[in-house]
Amino acid sequence: MSHNTFGHLFRVTTWGESHGPAIGCVVDGTPPGLALDEADIQTWLDRRRPGQSRFTTQRREADRVEILSGTFEGQTTGTPISLMIRNTDSRARDYDDIREKYRPGHADYTYDVKYGIRDHRGGGRASARETATRVAAGAVARKVLGPRIVIRGALIQVGPNGIDREAWDWDQVALNPFWCPDAAAAARWADRLDAVRKAGSSLGAVIEARASGVPAGLGAPVYGKLDAELAAAMMSINAVKGVEIGAGFDAASLTGEANADEMRSPDGQVEFLSNRAGGILGGIASGQDIVVRLAVKPTSSIRTPRRTIDRAGEETEISTAGRHDPCVGIRAVPVAEAMMACVLADHLLRHRAQIGPR
Amino acid sequence: MSHNTFGHLFRVTTWGESHGPAIGCVVDGTPPGLALDEADIQTWLDRRRPGQSRFTTQRREADRVEILSGTFEGQTTGTPISLMIRNTDSRARDYDDIREKYRPGHADYTYDVKYGIRDHRGGGRASARETATRVAAGAVARKVLGPRIVIRGALIQVGPNGIDREAWDWDQVALNPFWCPDAAAAARWADRLDAVRKAGSSLGAVIEARASGVPAGLGAPVYGKLDAELAAAMMSINAVKGVEIGAGFDAASLTGEANADEMRSPDGQVEFLSNRAGGILGGIASGQDIVVRLAVKPTSSIRTPRRTIDRAGEETEISTAGRHDPCVGIRAVPVAEAMMACVLADHLLRHRAQIGPR
Amino acid sequence: MSHNTFGHLFRVTTWGESHGPAIGCVVDGTPPGLALDEADIQTWLDRRRPGQSRFTTQRREADRVEILSGTFEGQTTGTPISLMIRNTDSRARDYDDIREKYRPGHADYTYDVKYGIRDHRGGGRASARETATRVAAGAVARKVLGPRIVIRGALIQVGPNGIDREAWDWDQVALNPFWCPDAAAAARWADRLDAVRKAGSSLGAVIEARASGVPAGLGAPVYGKLDAELAAAMMSINAVKGVEIGAGFDAASLTGEANADEMRSPDGQVEFLSNRAGGILGGIASGQDIVVRLAVKPTSSIRTPRRTIDRAGEETEISTAGRHDPCVGIRAVPVAEAMMACVLADHLLRHRAQIGPR
Amino acid sequence: MSHNTFGHLFRVTTWGESHGPAIGCVVDGTPPGLALDEADIQTWLDRRRPGQSRFTTQRREADRVEILSGTFEGQTTGTPISLMIRNTDSRARDYDDIREKYRPGHADYTYDVKYGIRDHRGGGRASARETATRVAAGAVARKVLGPRIVIRGALIQVGPNGIDREAWDWDQVALNPFWCPDAAAAARWADRLDAVRKAGSSLGAVIEARASGVPAGLGAPVYGKLDAELAAAMMSINAVKGVEIGAGFDAASLTGEANADEMRSPDGQVEFLSNRAGGILGGIASGQDIVVRLAVKPTSSIRTPRRTIDRAGEETEISTAGRHDPCVGIRAVPVAEAMMACVLADHLLRHRAQIGPR
Repeated sequence: MSHNTFGHLFRVTTWGESHGPAIGCVVDGTPPGLALDEADIQTWLDRRRPGQSRFTTQRREADRVEILSGTFEGQTTGTPISLMIRNTDSRARDYDDIREKYRPGHADYTYDVKYGIRDHRGGGRASARETATRVAAGAVARKVLGPRIVIRGALIQVGPNGIDREAWDWDQVALNPFWCPDAAAAARWADRLDAVRKAGSSLGAVIEARASGVPAGLGAPVYGKLDAELAAAMMSINAVKGVEIGAGFDAASLTGEANADEMRSPDGQVEFLSNRAGGILGGIASGQDIVVRLAVKPTSSIRTPRRTIDRAGEETEISTAGRHDPCVGIRAVPVAEAMMACVLADHLLRHRAQIGPR
Repeated sequence: MSHNTFGHLFRVTTWGESHGPAIGCVVDGTPPGLALDEADIQTWLDRRRPGQSRFTTQRREADRVEILSGTFEGQTTGTPISLMIRNTDSRARDYDDIREKYRPGHADYTYDVKYGIRDHRGGGRASARETATRVAAGAVARKVLGPRIVIRGALIQVGPNGIDREAWDWDQVALNPFWCPDAAAAARWADRLDAVRKAGSSLGAVIEARASGVPAGLGAPVYGKLDAELAAAMMSINAVKGVEIGAGFDAASLTGEANADEMRSPDGQVEFLSNRAGGILGGIASGQDIVVRLAVKPTSSIRTPRRTIDRAGEETEISTAGRHDPCVGIRAVPVAEAMMACVLADHLLRHRAQIGPR
Repeated sequence: MSHNTFGHLFRVTTWGESHGPAIGCVVDGTPPGLALDEADIQTWLDRRRPGQSRFTTQRREADRVEILSGTFEGQTTGTPISLMIRNTDSRARDYDDIREKYRPGHADYTYDVKYGIRDHRGGGRASARETATRVAAGAVARKVLGPRIVIRGALIQVGPNGIDREAWDWDQVALNPFWCPDAAAAARWADRLDAVRKAGSSLGAVIEARASGVPAGLGAPVYGKLDAELAAAMMSINAVKGVEIGAGFDAASLTGEANADEMRSPDGQVEFLSNRAGGILGGIASGQDIVVRLAVKPTSSIRTPRRTIDRAGEETEISTAGRHDPCVGIRAVPVAEAMMACVLADHLLRHRAQIGPR
Repeated sequence: MSHNTFGHLFRVTTWGESHGPAIGCVVDGTPPGLALDEADIQTWLDRRRPGQSRFTTQRREADRVEILSGTFEGQTTGTPISLMIRNTDSRARDYDDIREKYRPGHADYTYDVKYGIRDHRGGGRASARETATRVAAGAVARKVLGPRIVIRGALIQVGPNGIDREAWDWDQVALNPFWCPDAAAAARWADRLDAVRKAGSSLGAVIEARASGVPAGLGAPVYGKLDAELAAAMMSINAVKGVEIGAGFDAASLTGEANADEMRSPDGQVEFLSNRAGGILGGIASGQDIVVRLAVKPTSSIRTPRRTIDRAGEETEISTAGRHDPCVGIRAVPVAEAMMACVLADHLLRHRAQIGPR
């Protein structure tokens, strides 16, 4: 058991603080013989990297990954893959005036109560910076999954403003700074977030991540359910407050008839007539797309002053200057994809262990 | 790693099929010296037991628990506690006509694809019957938590029909067959579910579970976050499709200002002015109530015929007779409480391991 | 993590006290579709069962195993297999006069210090009775391994008296009450143990367990080494004080030249010219026989009075009457085989997970 | 589960190859607030460092450790401690002529069979270089244990030549290059190893490691036994072929009377009259010194030519030039100490979790 390790057979252990010399992860359990070099990982890190638009933090991190072990001549060897990313633009001074104050919505107070230590520099271990290492691990997970399983994420709501699902176009996702599949929504969000940013405020968001090509039978029962582990994976991402699968919370309002995904078999192929289950039945993949949505709260670091207390218990106010994302949900999209990849890679190995190949 | 084990230090391994001779669990890691006898467990099992009102399945199970190990003279010894519940009212014949058909919304198809085995008798391992063992384990978890930490659950929505949160009264929960904290809502649900039951249909529901008295500092960072593990725990319960903490999905629609739980310290006591975080910051308890909600889909076993296929891949129809809950969400309330107790008991031991006593 | 669970993917959780109503285990992770019924397990339990000769304890336990879950129509389903053995001949009264005294060599004192509980009835959880559940689990492990991997154990030393390795004959093992592969040694041991038994004393022993047919490549590096896990498995058996692989402690006395197992490839088949490695290199099987030896201390329960203290700290003497094995090493042979089977079954699944099939 | 992770609550994950850019480990689970800087770790690494006498490999590694995370202002924060050691003197060319050949006694053949990869550069992951990261982790473990628990190791046999136990003097250990507690034996070994080194041969050895100050009650039953986990820890060290606790293999030759460690309580203090148990009863510490011995095989890399095969299966010979230890057992002493520290630190946290403080 480790609080900083994720997965059972495809195992990721992350380490590092926002303002230390480096962050990194150790990925263990990878099958040998997979092609893997730094560029394979860098491409995903670049998608998450801050400072790429005016809608994300202006901290400039190259996020350059180094492979320190686990590959030989461009292939995985089956031994642990150690990945390191140097921190190059950490400005600990930015945090000097919060040295003694707890920022509402952050983990400052709870870390201090638990550990008795106040590492005030940018959230330390609780910083969203940790998610870079998840994205790096996710890149390895995608190699394990192979090209048949495709994982894609999109932002489907910013503040109260959602997309038009009828207008969903995956090609749009790469064309706007929000990973938004609906061009019209993206335009609205740009206006809204400009205003929010100028006001020193922030907004929440909803992400949808989908995996297609997942073979029916992948997953596990009871406590190893695919949906249970996806829920944990997503909820472990900073600022996430809710997770749902398929119809999710809407399923509560349905009748049994409406919720049933009926089955047909034209040409002998199993076919579901709907996907309210989100591709998972009894914790095991049905072969349909796996669909998960996660709610991200608004960035807690805002310029607007909020009432708080300091380490001595004195009442005070705080206004967070620093360089922050007006909507952390945006950069969480590649992180959600990475976590989904890690969960599925882990289950692929677990399935193979118990069931063997098909 | 085991798909049938839950928790790290307070560890629960469950076993048993709906229609086998018995179901049970092994609870390991319990501190020694806790008073524990069968009555302590039975009291919680009785709350979940079917057949107590016309709104739950008419299967008559005594759900009588036996302690087979781990206690001596009425106290836990620190060794594994083996609990067994005999199945006494399993009617495998009820399932004869679904021997070859997959029930939509059930795990029939996915279990068969994964394991190549069709144990058609009442869902086998995927049956909600497995949750009785969770409730038994939860009773032990409550002993570990002690009287200071109080865990309570309530049903807050049936179908599209929610409670009036202003009318919330915990005392009502024991007075109606729905664990509903709002007497007026309970009356509406009774009418609605009578109609649904007669129509051979079913409804979904939303549950809210709360833990009060959890000391600030309990929990863990990154992948061991309290909210991540609660999410997995809840999502592992049969039929659950969504989980949220505190403001949950609503947090996506808020601004940073609105979402911040401001802090004060009247009389030197730390106080939050709101609880949108649901009692958890950075994965660690803030000392406020921990609030989790879960969406339960409508019972998949309905009398209304649905299109499906059989094991041979032939198209057919299915109408599930049997004895089923018109709203499985009702009996999931004690299960959600039990899972919350297990997560917190595990974190209590984990916290003590790393941090020691305060 | 659980102190009562063994293995990673093939996972065995045992429970139960020597003098409670039953003992048992839950075996999780088993592949589906393996033929398994109670007779498959009983056959191995019968080999370990006490009271079969005058050289083992006269406690009469039928050791009748019940399968409570995890099989359907004579096949494993891939869900947890719950096995239970009722205790039928426990005489707690036998232990009344040790209620307050610590027996030297037993875990009485350390359990009491750790847990603050004195379950004096036959050693409670520390009793050798727990090993019956290991043997049951081992029977399932053998099913996972299939007929190609053969695991056999033998007693090779009783007290200071060893076998003649030149006389090793596997067929002898079933023909004497010691699992001794050397008929002459068995005869000597019978005489010696008769004397020891009459004197109320006891003797230690050395066991050798061998697995043949283990494919080269099975195993793991670093902390998952096959030999490391075999060492833990064997050392976890009651009364075991030493474990060695291949040349073992003798390897310390060898030169590099003498220790090297040279390799040849007649007919293109890889062949080693010796097996000082005991079939394991770098934690991974070489394809040769895996050879492990374990030292078992003499039974601690003896009639000869020994000095000890009681719970109050008072000095006293103890003489253990009861029904005890003059040499616990004898009944440990099937237990050692079972543990070897469990380790190998676990590694078979772990290998398949990471490497896939060949 | 990870093959490269050791421990349950005090968890060490190691990574890195002998001839890659660096090796390292992530230590998770450490309590916060422990004083820890690089010097605290370096001091132990320096003891294991090669090239300090003519009796160890002449590879010149500074073995300079960097702390990349997990401390703040000289204290542990409770978050993962990432430690890295750059490889500075790796000469991959040394290994060019073994690129295609399997070295007897090494893991070359088994790694190739398992992973299908031949990373010939110095043993890759199977190299004894990996043990440097264990020593680094052990330094952190000692901080967790505190000053009351003292762990010391000694070499007690080289080849067939043992020490005189009557002459045991802990102060001698630091005064000779063998960690030998008997000055006369050290002198004999120097002569013997000079000859062995010149002959291009090697010798095995036996190490004894002792922990004093371990409180009675530390440890766990059944599969979590202190001795079982020490056995795994020691057997996971490269070249170790046997492990014993207390009287170890000699216990097999004893009678029950001779083996019993009788108890007295002068002045109300519990006292054992002997320590054949090696400080562990039923897997739990008795309060006496914990005594473990391990057999290390002779270095497999020798100049004397040995018969072997190559990757193509062709028969050939091999003579290993390189820079090798004539007796790897010497440098394994600090590694054995480190592993003992890690096991005990893990158990200290596990004990505190279940039992709480005393």
